Amino acid sequence: MGQKRAEHYGISVGKLPKGPNNLVTDVPGVTVGHCTLSDGDLQTGVTVLLPCKENMCHHNLPANIFVLNGYGKSAGLIQVTELGNIESPIAFTNTLNVGKVHDAMVDYLCQQGQAADIEVQSINPIVMECNDSVLSDIRRRAVESKHVFAAIEAADVTFAEGAVGAGRGMICHDLKGGIGSASRLMEVEGKTYTMGVLVLANHGSLSDLMIDGKHVGKELAPKIQEAPQDRGSCIVVLVTDLPLSDRQLGRVTHRAPVALARLGAHIGQGSGEIFMAISTANPIDPKEKTPLRSVTAFNEELMDIPFRAAIECTEEALVNILFTAETVTGYKGKTIHGLTDIWTPEGQ
Amino acid sequence: MGQKRAEHYGISVGKLPKGPNNLVTDVPGVTVGHCTLSDGDLQTGVTVLLPCKENMCHHNLPANIFVLNGYGKSAGLIQVTELGNIESPIAFTNTLNVGKVHDAMVDYLCQQGQAADIEVQSINPIVMECNDSVLSDIRRRAVESKHVFAAIEAADVTFAEGAVGAGRGMICHDLKGGIGSASRLMEVEGKTYTMGVLVLANHGSLSDLMIDGKHVGKELAPKIQEAPQDRGSCIVVLVTDLPLSDRQLGRVTHRAPVALARLGAHIGQGSGEIFMAISTANPIDPKEKTPLRSVTAFNEELMDIPFRAAIECTEEALVNILFTAETVTGYKGKTIHGLTDIWTPEGQ
Amino acid sequence: MGQKRAEHYGISVGKLPKGPNNLVTDVPGVTVGHCTLSDGDLQTGVTVLLPCKENMCHHNLPANIFVLNGYGKSAGLIQVTELGNIESPIAFTNTLNVGKVHDAMVDYLCQQGQAADIEVQSINPIVMECNDSVLSDIRRRAVESKHVFAAIEAADVTFAEGAVGAGRGMICHDLKGGIGSASRLMEVEGKTYTMGVLVLANHGSLSDLMIDGKHVGKELAPKIQEAPQDRGSCIVVLVTDLPLSDRQLGRVTHRAPVALARLGAHIGQGSGEIFMAISTANPIDPKEKTPLRSVTAFNEELMDIPFRAAIECTEEALVNILFTAETVTGYKGKTIHGLTDIWTPEGQ
Amino acid sequence: MGQKRAEHYGISVGKLPKGPNNLVTDVPGVTVGHCTLSDGDLQTGVTVLLPCKENMCHHNLPANIFVLNGYGKSAGLIQVTELGNIESPIAFTNTLNVGKVHDAMVDYLCQQGQAADIEVQSINPIVMECNDSVLSDIRRRAVESKHVFAAIEAADVTFAEGAVGAGRGMICHDLKGGIGSASRLMEVEGKTYTMGVLVLANHGSLSDLMIDGKHVGKELAPKIQEAPQDRGSCIVVLVTDLPLSDRQLGRVTHRAPVALARLGAHIGQGSGEIFMAISTANPIDPKEKTPLRSVTAFNEELMDIPFRAAIECTEEALVNILFTAETVTGYKGKTIHGLTDIWTPEGQ
Repeated sequence: MGQKRAEHYGISVGKLPKGPNNLVTDVPGVTVGHCTLSDGDLQTGVTVLLPCKENMCHHNLPANIFVLNGYGKSAGLIQVTELGNIESPIAFTNTLNVGKVHDAMVDYLCQQGQAADIEVQSINPIVMECNDSVLSDIRRRAVESKHVFAAIEAADVTFAEGAVGAGRGMICHDLKGGIGSASRLMEVEGKTYTMGVLVLANHGSLSDLMIDGKHVGKELAPKIQEAPQDRGSCIVVLVTDLPLSDRQLGRVTHRAPVALARLGAHIGQGSGEIFMAISTANPIDPKEKTPLRSVTAFNEELMDIPFRAAIECTEEALVNILFTAETVTGYKGKTIHGLTDIWTPEGQ
Repeated sequence: MGQKRAEHYGISVGKLPKGPNNLVTDVPGVTVGHCTLSDGDLQTGVTVLLPCKENMCHHNLPANIFVLNGYGKSAGLIQVTELGNIESPIAFTNTLNVGKVHDAMVDYLCQQGQAADIEVQSINPIVMECNDSVLSDIRRRAVESKHVFAAIEAADVTFAEGAVGAGRGMICHDLKGGIGSASRLMEVEGKTYTMGVLVLANHGSLSDLMIDGKHVGKELAPKIQEAPQDRGSCIVVLVTDLPLSDRQLGRVTHRAPVALARLGAHIGQGSGEIFMAISTANPIDPKEKTPLRSVTAFNEELMDIPFRAAIECTEEALVNILFTAETVTGYKGKTIHGLTDIWTPEGQ
Repeated sequence: MGQKRAEHYGISVGKLPKGPNNLVTDVPGVTVGHCTLSDGDLQTGVTVLLPCKENMCHHNLPANIFVLNGYGKSAGLIQVTELGNIESPIAFTNTLNVGKVHDAMVDYLCQQGQAADIEVQSINPIVMECNDSVLSDIRRRAVESKHVFAAIEAADVTFAEGAVGAGRGMICHDLKGGIGSASRLMEVEGKTYTMGVLVLANHGSLSDLMIDGKHVGKELAPKIQEAPQDRGSCIVVLVTDLPLSDRQLGRVTHRAPVALARLGAHIGQGSGEIFMAISTANPIDPKEKTPLRSVTAFNEELMDIPFRAAIECTEEALVNILFTAETVTGYKGKTIHGLTDIWTPEGQ
Repeated sequence: MGQKRAEHYGISVGKLPKGPNNLVTDVPGVTVGHCTLSDGDLQTGVTVLLPCKENMCHHNLPANIFVLNGYGKSAGLIQVTELGNIESPIAFTNTLNVGKVHDAMVDYLCQQGQAADIEVQSINPIVMECNDSVLSDIRRRAVESKHVFAAIEAADVTFAEGAVGAGRGMICHDLKGGIGSASRLMEVEGKTYTMGVLVLANHGSLSDLMIDGKHVGKELAPKIQEAPQDRGSCIVVLVTDLPLSDRQLGRVTHRAPVALARLGAHIGQGSGEIFMAISTANPIDPKEKTPLRSVTAFNEELMDIPFRAAIECTEEALVNILFTAETVTGYKGKTIHGLTDIWTPEGQ
């Protein structure tokens, strides 16, 4: 990808080993695609995370959600909590585009049903959102069905970070925000599992910003005009091939706030923070008729392993966003600077 | 309206007095409108409940939600829980139409913003849904923006119940379901308050059906082919002018299951049951800058008054649905009978 | 036991077959014991449900909880939600005795640890409570450690219902309440599973009372002085050998309100309603070191089977309480009548 | 008090001004008392926070709770969530002593009732706990009724931090943990409000420890034997005189994880993290008969003010614990070092 990420700048979070690409796609089967809309007043887009290669109409995955701050409009969450699974890829877009992207995902899932010879009559698309109205003319709801399909089409194991896809117009700690990712490897009984994350970051204040434990925001704050409030939101989607139950995935999501806090977030009043975790193990075929099946369960006493992996990769994904997101000028000529415009770590 | 409701058949639920129209619109300011699509394979529609006459851009209302069974796709719920209020009317439609109706509500709310001289950049439409795929070709997503606006336009203090609006294609206890309403009066310190409800019912099995404590389903079941499962959903929206806090409104929603149970519901696995309660007292202007304001609080020790009112009117609304919903023939020629096709209470 | 239960009076709830004793102990391994304190002003006690024969220090069981009305003081609940299991039998007592019974359970569990060669340093006893202060001098906290141990000692597959153990001083629908039980059989793929329930009922108003769909409370209310409020509480503990996950057990608990509603409950403001469900399948040994183990999972699409079983047995357990609980005179000479003092079903 | 706190070492967290004593007791009316048991194998105790000077039998206070990790045994929480208030002071002790302290609190509250001419029949004591079994012989349950009363008796606006009261045997980041406090001032419309916190810290790993953004744990870890797991727990009780509603107090508790994360916590699997927030404004008299009363509400748009104050004082309270807790040798001769035994900030 050629993007200069945290590692390039000598910043490495935590102590666990990283996956080969240090991306959520290090989890086998996961792909991510963007469709970016960048044209003057429009700086927006859509990103789709496909958690598996299988047709999800007969391949639901265990999942759970933690709403740290429900000041958000993401759709499809309550069914995840109830059933402990997802039956759809995860789409990310801007706040006012949730309806249109939801409808496009219904289209996509009906097509998937057709491919699987299933007449879809009920389906639960997951649409996550942050608000990009500072940099983009959000009321146009410019993300259309074709853009959603383009993002799905573009999904791959390598993908760009920063001011791309749904991240195009996002702002993080008063700097250019957007999409970031990272991964960690977990050794369990001689086998290696992966925890990966995709983050859409649109939250935080510059004066609070910490990178790698250093309070860099203090010195940078005078250089940039801070927004009056920690508005925005932050969406974190963790994926792992460790066979965690839906309850255990919920416990993993409860550790995500730690990563945001490490960069100085205060979980602002207007900042909808929603965290999801998905396991690619123990898939469920909703058409399966057998009453009982055998699943693999993970020892609760070892949960610190995925907890630590989740915190580390989420913190690093946030740092990656700040380093990769370039300066963007958008709606009404407003410019938001990328971090590297105003700062690089010492010695770099 | 001329529709024959529970009262017409001599069935009256509970002991509290009813409002003048025995409708949710007995709560001052509340109106309800339908747009019904009935054309062969399409038997669907949209219903909108406007909880106040004011422009909701500067008139948010205290609200809360209880998800008894989260097997549903309703949108906008998590923000209600977080902020304890709604900033939008409540739209009801079918499962696969949630995205399109959501987008139409964004349009409507942006227009409302304009009328109030507010540039809307973030808004939380509430879209409730049940699945009408037995009677309607749900994958067409036939409810369009114009239908949502037509329902809003049509909103009035009188409105039809039964197989109308979002209720057109719904099925309740294997009989024709749909939209129902009722209200109860509450005396508090010499002043009269109202509790009203709008219900979209699409759940239950005929053999379980109880009306007024009588197990009528047992005798009726052989007359009708029962669905194999208690699929569907039931959406209950309670509105009151009693000054309940968001937490107290949450407590009110926790009593709604009692009403469903009284008609024999078993809260089926696939039946998304979502209950909302709204107070029209203590409105909030989100643009208000004053740090502190005075609000009226209701004595917790008297909560049995709104609890009983909520249960009574919800039970009666469910009975009203069964008596008012006429037989409908829809998708692929499927017919679902209205209750009065096969049964009327003794002596009627 | 010789007690005249619902069946004796020709009342049978629902359509599923019952277990051999129609008690929670029809679930293999379950036993229940009481210790009753009945002496003038003291009409109270303790009941213990042991969900398995194994030492629970190395045999935790999947479990979950639903708090319908949290106006209660039961202890140990949050860990059940977090870990999805219990590591202790369930003790039932009166409100002000929770601390003492909690301490006695710690004693018991430390002894259990010793027997298993485990030095217990952390343990989560579950203590459920209702308030018996009308019939018993609750401030004496008369239930002591020896009574808890006596109840455990007395635990058996047969046990009395009604005004016994923790139920001694309870009041239900203004009549004598207490302890009740019932069970249902579930056929799944040619194998028979059991759902059983133990209920401690201390809620409801007489004028609302319905039995078997008949509104008997209307005629009985004038015979008895009703309490001014639906105070009290109702604790429902469901146990099954069906291999339900903790999330699925949570879904089962969400159906318990239906059973209470069938008898006319309004879930009063002061009535703490807490529902627990436990599976005896897939036990967990917390000392187990293996990272992965195989567990049996139940098909979500078949959840209507345990849902219906849970509703039916809980409704019947409530009816059993009313028929078996004899008239008790207690604190300050207050008398609460057993149902059969004032009513028996027609033809009995 | 003479204890050397974070400020003494030149460490000051955040940017908001501090209260006069930088203690939770800066909130008018709040007092804190300890009773410490330190005798060889016993290193334990009890701490009580009294949130107001009034008799709480007729002076309940708005409150809410957030359970980040429910692996804990604290008692009394579900009623707080349901009713949005507390009717008791908050007691802190060790895990296995919850029952005995609960019973002592019932005693105390019955006495309070008597003083207010109220016959207490139902009461909800709040008992928070962490596990001190490494330093203390926890199975003795040494904290008795007299110790609870002694702690209440000792309650004052000044109180010790560190290895005192319930904090006597606690371990934080593998160093001596215990009790800490801090406060922040909030300017709202020309009036000054206070946010204070009392923390009982018993969580974290040394190698993860960060102080003031510096990763000091990395260098210190080799000096101390780390525990194999981030066991323990952390209890945070925030108190403010800002008139926050129970829902808003719940939002405040959701920011507490940020403070723990700032010191390097990973929210370990076995670490029960429970956060409570209380407002001393808008007290409720449960015996009040008036149906409606007027309360003061705080503007939601200004919630970032209490959020930031809560995070800052909680982070500082945690640092205070580490600096004030002295080395303790306890159960079976085990020694846990105070931070200052092995490290002081540069230049101090």
